[in-house]
Amino acid sequence: MPYKLFYWPGIQGRGEFVRLALEAAGAPYVDVVRAGAAEPGGESASGMAAMLRYFEDDSVPRPPFACPFLVDGRQVIAQTAAILLHLAPKLGLVGKSEADRLWTHQIQLTIADMVAEAHDTHHPIAGSLYYEQQKAEALRRAQDFRRQRLPKFLQWFEAVLARNPRNLANDERRADGRALHLVGARLSYADLSLFQLVDGLLYAFPKATRRELKRAPHVAALHGQVRALPRVAAYLQSERRLAFNEDGIFRRYPELDG
Amino acid sequence: MPYKLFYWPGIQGRGEFVRLALEAAGAPYVDVVRAGAAEPGGESASGMAAMLRYFEDDSVPRPPFACPFLVDGRQVIAQTAAILLHLAPKLGLVGKSEADRLWTHQIQLTIADMVAEAHDTHHPIAGSLYYEQQKAEALRRAQDFRRQRLPKFLQWFEAVLARNPRNLANDERRADGRALHLVGARLSYADLSLFQLVDGLLYAFPKATRRELKRAPHVAALHGQVRALPRVAAYLQSERRLAFNEDGIFRRYPELDG
Repeated sequence: MPYKLFYWPGIQGRGEFVRLALEAAGAPYVDVVRAGAAEPGGESASGMAAMLRYFEDDSVPRPPFACPFLVDGRQVIAQTAAILLHLAPKLGLVGKSEADRLWTHQIQLTIADMVAEAHDTHHPIAGSLYYEQQKAEALRRAQDFRRQRLPKFLQWFEAVLARNPRNLANDERRADGRALHLVGARLSYADLSLFQLVDGLLYAFPKATRRELKRAPHVAALHGQVRALPRVAAYLQSERRLAFNEDGIFRRYPELDG
Repeated sequence: MPYKLFYWPGIQGRGEFVRLALEAAGAPYVDVVRAGAAEPGGESASGMAAMLRYFEDDSVPRPPFACPFLVDGRQVIAQTAAILLHLAPKLGLVGKSEADRLWTHQIQLTIADMVAEAHDTHHPIAGSLYYEQQKAEALRRAQDFRRQRLPKFLQWFEAVLARNPRNLANDERRADGRALHLVGARLSYADLSLFQLVDGLLYAFPKATRRELKRAPHVAALHGQVRALPRVAAYLQSERRLAFNEDGIFRRYPELDG
């Protein structure tokens, strides 16, 4: 039975971290709300109604607080990091040892923290207000994000990659053709998520992110390597990959970059 | 060997969620920075230096991004939810099934999201600035938090408690003496964390939180029940429990309540 992913149909958002794991593993899944939107009658007739039922129906025993959520058989799992924690062993996207699994999860939670901060650059006051209603505050928050938080997070990811003993040094790696990984010697969901985070940052803050990536060469290399993985590359070129836009987490408002 | 917990010595902060789990289980642990602070020479001579080493020493293979972090033998684990995921099976603070463990973690991650939003009511622009430098923005963000986010989160926790089939109805429970739980029929770290979250909200936003708890009677009851657990009650009255203060996550600025 394919996994069922529930998420807003018009944005990459947090759903994209789950989609990337499913796509990179070649796992069967239905993107329920978007699949409904492609049918006659559109999203409201099928997929969206199915998603909203999980929020509104009192008989759901373990309700999601928000999407994305995944339905795997009888289990309903929300929280992006928890979904990935559940999926990764089945998809072969995490190491086998408990220590590697926990470390991978710790990295994912740190990625999630940065995603939330990136979102709040354009919504520092309230998700329920428009950007234009909090633009003055956004200018201040984005400045701090670019100057303090972006370098701090990227330098931490850089350190994680540089200190992974299974990653070869730059020159050796090029000669060997072996890829970089955050954890151990294999692709994990944390690698996919860091790709997505950097991709979003490059969209939202192209100037600041390019500048900081010069100081984080391992992160920049990982981003390029993940993008070139055959299944990921095929996905990114498919219609299933939505474009970044100004309804999502990563928004390009040039006044917030610099 | 006792667990070693590393966290800032002057605030409850996110470290408190780990402390509560260790205390409620009666587990041996050293609160490293605070233990150092109690010795001659103070914190800088021992505990604080030990904590900072994990951030600054390039030879730490899997460095924490921030505290709290836990040292368990050779493992260094950061991210509050990841620490609890690791500790809970050892401490008997989570169910045995994978489904229960994942659901408990999902609740913890939602608690973590609300903790971050509670923090940002007084720091909506930057953690590196003082409250006074972002007070105008804080007034706006806190209003949205009180009106939109506080009710939404508390109603979700209320639904989780009300829909747990192992929780008896109010009258039956009183007659039976049995406690409420978020997951299954036993105390989990999510119960402890929800207690701490509500305790912090009652400190920071006493008016708004008391008002909302009237509409969330299960949440209010759980808060009271956890506080009365023998080990938790003993801990809360000990010197190990720091008081809430205006350096932590939950701060009482009356202008932000209402």
